[in-house]
Amino acid sequence: MKLADRTISGFCELLASSEPAPGGGSAAALQGALAASLVEMVCALTVGRKKYAEHDELMKEISKEAAKLRLEFVSLIDRDTEAFNSFSLVMKMPKDSDGEKDARSQAMQEVLKACTATPFRMMRCALAVLELAEKMPGKSNSTAASDLGVAVLSAKAALQGAWLNVLINIGGIKDGEFTGKYRREGETILNKSLQLADKIYIHVLECM
Amino acid sequence: MKLADRTISGFCELLASSEPAPGGGSAAALQGALAASLVEMVCALTVGRKKYAEHDELMKEISKEAAKLRLEFVSLIDRDTEAFNSFSLVMKMPKDSDGEKDARSQAMQEVLKACTATPFRMMRCALAVLELAEKMPGKSNSTAASDLGVAVLSAKAALQGAWLNVLINIGGIKDGEFTGKYRREGETILNKSLQLADKIYIHVLECM
Repeated sequence: MKLADRTISGFCELLASSEPAPGGGSAAALQGALAASLVEMVCALTVGRKKYAEHDELMKEISKEAAKLRLEFVSLIDRDTEAFNSFSLVMKMPKDSDGEKDARSQAMQEVLKACTATPFRMMRCALAVLELAEKMPGKSNSTAASDLGVAVLSAKAALQGAWLNVLINIGGIKDGEFTGKYRREGETILNKSLQLADKIYIHVLECM
Repeated sequence: MKLADRTISGFCELLASSEPAPGGGSAAALQGALAASLVEMVCALTVGRKKYAEHDELMKEISKEAAKLRLEFVSLIDRDTEAFNSFSLVMKMPKDSDGEKDARSQAMQEVLKACTATPFRMMRCALAVLELAEKMPGKSNSTAASDLGVAVLSAKAALQGAWLNVLINIGGIKDGEFTGKYRREGETILNKSLQLADKIYIHVLECM
């Protein structure tokens, strides 16, 4: 059964269990999905209102992009856990002979790269949600200001949570070119997104 | 159907829709539930490990408290939307005569107080999760450090999201004693929690 098909309370129970997956990576993806969903909701509460008529087209465009990001985040909830499950399988590979050790070690490097790519993708998606949210203050329904704020906070938590998952995985990767690239690009996305998130959050807070 | 009984993808779809509830308040409660769940998971991955044997009892205690907080947060997902739905009903009350206007206005004040109390409760619960998480670095399974980090980020997002929901509701409340109390106590919880969250997050980040 896919994680995305579980109930909210059932997913939380499974998350709370001693199963290492789903874990923080899937939780971060769910937070990204909440962020994208709330951006869509604020657009839906704006489109068709006389007061915001001039922003109708912009809101429709943002909503379309946010819907794509919501679906990608929902699929990332499962993808992150699948990547971790592959890691667990490799951990169980035999390591008695030198040949077995080599094969296990090589498989481990491959699987750690996959475990890095999934939260890295979440970071890109979280930045994309924040870039949509940035266009909304002043142009979207002000009665939903707190919802826009929660969207931004969720995207920020998804971003930082995904970054922790990138870091914990690259810690085990020997390919310096790979780790250097992910660390550099990750830091760039992180810094850009945090600035954006804090800017929009402060704006929302000032409207309260 | 309770929101907590919906599937993850179904909940996100509903959140994204033009229905104003569930909105940011319920999303914040879900983030709190994710935080509490991850604290439980990290405890479950620590209990019974030789390396952390001396912290077994502490981890069991933390896990028990986190489970209570998870269940309360899950129920807050629905409670927040129920509070909002009561607000919507009051909005539809007639306001033709002076008597109707008075009755509507009085009902509105009552319902706004209930809409404030729910996210305020979330703030208290988010602080409680952070106080549990604070005890864990160095005493819980270090391979789950990123999960503890995501727990803290989720609790922080729940806290700040709930605070936005407190603020947007007290904006409409005329009872100065009530708004003063919630604003003062809310700011105290907010500041204490943010300091705690950032301290634990930085600790986790340094372990990566």
